[in-house]
Amino acid sequence: MNEHDADKQFEKTGLTLPPAPEPKGVYKPCLIDGKYLYLSGHGPLRDDNTLIIGRIGKELNKEEGKLAARQVGLAMLSTIRKNLGSLNMVNRVIKVFGMVNCVPEFEQHPYIINGCSELFADIWGVDKGVGTRSAVGFASLPENIPVEIEAVFELISPINKPISSI
Amino acid sequence: MNEHDADKQFEKTGLTLPPAPEPKGVYKPCLIDGKYLYLSGHGPLRDDNTLIIGRIGKELNKEEGKLAARQVGLAMLSTIRKNLGSLNMVNRVIKVFGMVNCVPEFEQHPYIINGCSELFADIWGVDKGVGTRSAVGFASLPENIPVEIEAVFELISPINKPISSI
Amino acid sequence: MNEHDADKQFEKTGLTLPPAPEPKGVYKPCLIDGKYLYLSGHGPLRDDNTLIIGRIGKELNKEEGKLAARQVGLAMLSTIRKNLGSLNMVNRVIKVFGMVNCVPEFEQHPYIINGCSELFADIWGVDKGVGTRSAVGFASLPENIPVEIEAVFELISPINKPISSI
Repeated sequence: MNEHDADKQFEKTGLTLPPAPEPKGVYKPCLIDGKYLYLSGHGPLRDDNTLIIGRIGKELNKEEGKLAARQVGLAMLSTIRKNLGSLNMVNRVIKVFGMVNCVPEFEQHPYIINGCSELFADIWGVDKGVGTRSAVGFASLPENIPVEIEAVFELISPINKPISSI
Repeated sequence: MNEHDADKQFEKTGLTLPPAPEPKGVYKPCLIDGKYLYLSGHGPLRDDNTLIIGRIGKELNKEEGKLAARQVGLAMLSTIRKNLGSLNMVNRVIKVFGMVNCVPEFEQHPYIINGCSELFADIWGVDKGVGTRSAVGFASLPENIPVEIEAVFELISPINKPISSI
Repeated sequence: MNEHDADKQFEKTGLTLPPAPEPKGVYKPCLIDGKYLYLSGHGPLRDDNTLIIGRIGKELNKEEGKLAARQVGLAMLSTIRKNLGSLNMVNRVIKVFGMVNCVPEFEQHPYIINGCSELFADIWGVDKGVGTRSAVGFASLPENIPVEIEAVFELISPINKPISSI
């Protein structure tokens, strides 16, 4: 019996999930390989299906960047729920790669990506919701989004049958 | 019986493979771990063993960038064939990381990396040839190449004996 | 019987390990998943717990950048030893991702990251200490460090019990 309920934890945040993003190129938003779930780079998709746009240190400040990273996390949760049915299918976060679109002088990439990592810690707990991570600065990101994040998760059990878009 | 023949699919493209790239530092071009094949970052190596050079948005335009990404894909296929003997040893693409060397204003990274992903879809099919992906902008790449791509593939079966350079 | 002794090899280098870096955000410095060890992005932490700072091609030259990458490697070894007790727990390097903070004109990223890869080759040998790799240029890194590196290692055997901070 797993008493931790990630879906209930999500409800407690009071946040809403944007639609699961459609791929904007030749890739799958997520892929399952046995007990691993791979998520493609996700952007900060809003509930109205538009993207938060702008470079951190230019059009967006640090707080706006952190909120954008949280919005990326919400888009990732939406992809998980669409494809797996429940956030409880994830056992833990293995690896997060946080890509920050910022001016070259910017030095606080971890602060930005915490916007996503704190959300995952709220959902799956401070042990299982927190994995390894890099948070680094990119010269440019698609459509000039401020943050893009890809991740690898461990599932509660291996999945061998194909699932919807996966 | 797997009726899909990736080597025949490659022949149908009419494209030629460049030589498998030699490492330009202390790394292996590829590594096998059980049923997984890891490929190091590959550049756009031409048949004559020279690299396509230039930044997208500066020396190269969008179409040239996409062709460079296809050339990266061909170099990756060359590494696979050299080390595994056949493209049929790959069951599917797990993960592609597409690194684009472009001016900061560039916003169409997915378009560029599709040059590689469309090739993989031609070779292994639109299901197994397409995995998860990020396509993002770098401030600089080695030797000023326009595109570098690394990837993880699933093999048709685990390989436990050492293979040539792997 | 494994006659190779990574801890002894480290002693032979005459180098010293900095303290294992504390996380500067919501992430774990390392995570074990069965037979795999994931390391978060590490920076060039000195023995006195300060970071080497500066962009390559601006405040730091190529040789200083390579030494910074070696220092990153030492910080990674420190994390491994703190969490696993011995460098002999690692069987081999699977994958290294080398992130270089440099001016856009810089083209010798592999040279920089060799500073880390040569250290790993010294510790675990030129076969098992060398895995796949990408070495690429970032627009900015946290705190303006010159190099950040993340990696995946294979352990000598799977570890299923939780270990200290992991």
